[in-house]
Amino acid sequence: MRAVDLIRKKRDGLEHSREEIDYLVAGYTRGDIPDYQMAAWLMAVWLRGLNGPESAALTEAMLHSGEVVDHSYLKMRKVDKHSTGGVGDNTSLILAPIVAAGGLAVPMISGRGLGHTGGTLDKLEAIPGFNTSLSLADFRRVLTECGMGLIGQTAEIAPADKKIYALRDATSTVENIGLITGSIMSKKLAEGIDALVLDVKTGSGAFMAKEEDAVRLAEAMVETARRMGKKCVALLTDMDQPLGRMAGHSNEVIEAIEVLRGEGPEDLRELSVELSAWMFYLGERTKSVDEGRALANEMIRTGAALERFRQCIKLQGGDDRVIDDKYRLPGARGRLVVESQRAGWITGTDCREFGIALAMLEGGRGKKEDTIDHGVGLEFHKRIGDRVEVGEKLATIHYNADAKLAAAVELIEKSYFIGETRVPARPLIRRILGA
Amino acid sequence: MRAVDLIRKKRDGLEHSREEIDYLVAGYTRGDIPDYQMAAWLMAVWLRGLNGPESAALTEAMLHSGEVVDHSYLKMRKVDKHSTGGVGDNTSLILAPIVAAGGLAVPMISGRGLGHTGGTLDKLEAIPGFNTSLSLADFRRVLTECGMGLIGQTAEIAPADKKIYALRDATSTVENIGLITGSIMSKKLAEGIDALVLDVKTGSGAFMAKEEDAVRLAEAMVETARRMGKKCVALLTDMDQPLGRMAGHSNEVIEAIEVLRGEGPEDLRELSVELSAWMFYLGERTKSVDEGRALANEMIRTGAALERFRQCIKLQGGDDRVIDDKYRLPGARGRLVVESQRAGWITGTDCREFGIALAMLEGGRGKKEDTIDHGVGLEFHKRIGDRVEVGEKLATIHYNADAKLAAAVELIEKSYFIGETRVPARPLIRRILGA
Repeated sequence: MRAVDLIRKKRDGLEHSREEIDYLVAGYTRGDIPDYQMAAWLMAVWLRGLNGPESAALTEAMLHSGEVVDHSYLKMRKVDKHSTGGVGDNTSLILAPIVAAGGLAVPMISGRGLGHTGGTLDKLEAIPGFNTSLSLADFRRVLTECGMGLIGQTAEIAPADKKIYALRDATSTVENIGLITGSIMSKKLAEGIDALVLDVKTGSGAFMAKEEDAVRLAEAMVETARRMGKKCVALLTDMDQPLGRMAGHSNEVIEAIEVLRGEGPEDLRELSVELSAWMFYLGERTKSVDEGRALANEMIRTGAALERFRQCIKLQGGDDRVIDDKYRLPGARGRLVVESQRAGWITGTDCREFGIALAMLEGGRGKKEDTIDHGVGLEFHKRIGDRVEVGEKLATIHYNADAKLAAAVELIEKSYFIGETRVPARPLIRRILGA
Repeated sequence: MRAVDLIRKKRDGLEHSREEIDYLVAGYTRGDIPDYQMAAWLMAVWLRGLNGPESAALTEAMLHSGEVVDHSYLKMRKVDKHSTGGVGDNTSLILAPIVAAGGLAVPMISGRGLGHTGGTLDKLEAIPGFNTSLSLADFRRVLTECGMGLIGQTAEIAPADKKIYALRDATSTVENIGLITGSIMSKKLAEGIDALVLDVKTGSGAFMAKEEDAVRLAEAMVETARRMGKKCVALLTDMDQPLGRMAGHSNEVIEAIEVLRGEGPEDLRELSVELSAWMFYLGERTKSVDEGRALANEMIRTGAALERFRQCIKLQGGDDRVIDDKYRLPGARGRLVVESQRAGWITGTDCREFGIALAMLEGGRGKKEDTIDHGVGLEFHKRIGDRVEVGEKLATIHYNADAKLAAAVELIEKSYFIGETRVPARPLIRRILGA
């Protein structure tokens, strides 16, 4: 087998065998296939696509480029959730404690934020002392004690994905269903889980802005998981506006704690409960999603989930007093209110721009090397379907540096679309795929 | 400007500006843009294409990556011919002496053979002592003395093409009209010529087997030449069977000398005269192609062209006695006749396979590093439209080693298609584009 022939094959729109994909991924990971051949193949894939069996083969080849974590020491089933990312999406911090409190294990390996989206690891690191770089041995210890753990990708997990992703980033071959599927699923399945719930975002703040693209990605991921013997469903959820009322790292930890306390915004609570419910059901903890929903609400009502979160923070080296005292989290010195210049109804938002505005305030990363100010954030006062008057608050900026404050205000203001006619509030969960 | 954005642009099927193509070619040649980004761009180009202005910009950027040879010391106009290659195509050895004898300069920079096609440099090197690696200073001296010269590409000429071609070879991005145009035309225009005649082959022995592909390539090359202020026409000529009666290096030198003597096969003579006639006309030596044809025939009839070839061989260090004594060329010890197994009419040939059979006998290169036996060759006794009886000669193999002789015989035999019905002989020149 020769790489040059496999490039030609995909260039000509033909289908790869499992052996061919194994050869490419293993050869590239070892360094036998050079970057330039992989780059040409990736572009051919971007333009020609990968079908279901090819995506599954890619996922499996990348998965087996590294270690699949063994959690057989845990008696309960292992489940996880993956979100394709958005603005204010902190459900991982909520559902992991709910599901662990409910009796399943959640061995979550998460990522960092980039561009307009935040990352779970960055949010957790707003908690003083919280260590997301545990060794696998320490990760196992945390999981054994509290049924949940949240760490970053280790060098042992899917090294092929790490190498291929860096190349995709430099060659404009990121946004392709087959390649995204392989990248996400190889890492998630390396967690050694039994079932996976996918939260595929769509709308102006999602990577897949168009619903049909989000559906294609969701279907490809569910198909791949099932080909590999894992239970999987995908919830297609709205990202035409931020999730919850808060964005920013400390802000989202605070809001997660509020939801775990039975408070917090309705939409965030609803989605966290729904995702937990599906995790309970796929993890065979409950006989139905309805029962799962009841169990999730029960874990919130009794405070068991919040206690589980406190325990996890402590086990991972964090200051668990943040649960009761939000002022122990990094904060922002300044508050600036963005007021509406006109009256009308909120008809939509350019949600991605809120994420960009947050990054401008150093509450996100423009590029990988950027450092983050965990204390800054945004607070959203209006949602799609709300009435707004001239001078009424649209959002509040929590800032520390004021260098780009004026630009952030302008960006936020113009990202609220205000019309003459009332539009109905959006359903948060648009579709469920693979149920 | 960033390479990653230009890759994305071509990936999405958008058109590059001249500045963008300059940036990519110059950056890659300098080493600022890595192989993997160029590889991704090349695959995007392969699948999305380059339009006329883009091909011209690519040609010009590659041309200006190196030196454009200055022949202003020559008083006459400078013309050249380029063939896309085939089997038995030795017209360069015939038309360069004809055109130089007729009063124009032919500063020809040629290539080597690869795969099923031969190369002009390799053919010339069958002549003992012939040096195709002259310095540019020596090349100028030869041109000044005899009006023609035949050398290989130097490091100064289009270095971008050399680097990009090697990458295309390793990434399955060779066969693309825009990239082929850029590669051929940047090298040809670096010769410092005023006009160029293209011989674009089509048929079973050509790189562009399908006529419509050959036409597209011819049109792209003519358009590019004209955008760059050069006169240019393309003759679309038949390569459904070998040109002339001979293939192999010594064999083709012998046949060229025969044509220059007013002998040799009809088809080879016709094409050489036609190409010379167009060179005379585009080089403004004659007022019409008809006059050019008359001048070419005159140069053969008077022996002026043959004398010019003799002079050039001598000036480039070769043994000019080969003109009168073909046994001074490397020869083949053995002769093996391939006889027809059946009676009928020759309806076609798989011409490419003749070139492969020749390479099997070491009369060509499977890969770039292979050495060549100049003495081996093939002699073709039948052409499309001819009658053949059982046991009648189809071809004669001139061989030295017999390791792959049986395989070569089998390949040649099955590459003659013999049918029940007579087909008419093919026109050699199918179309003239850009006239």
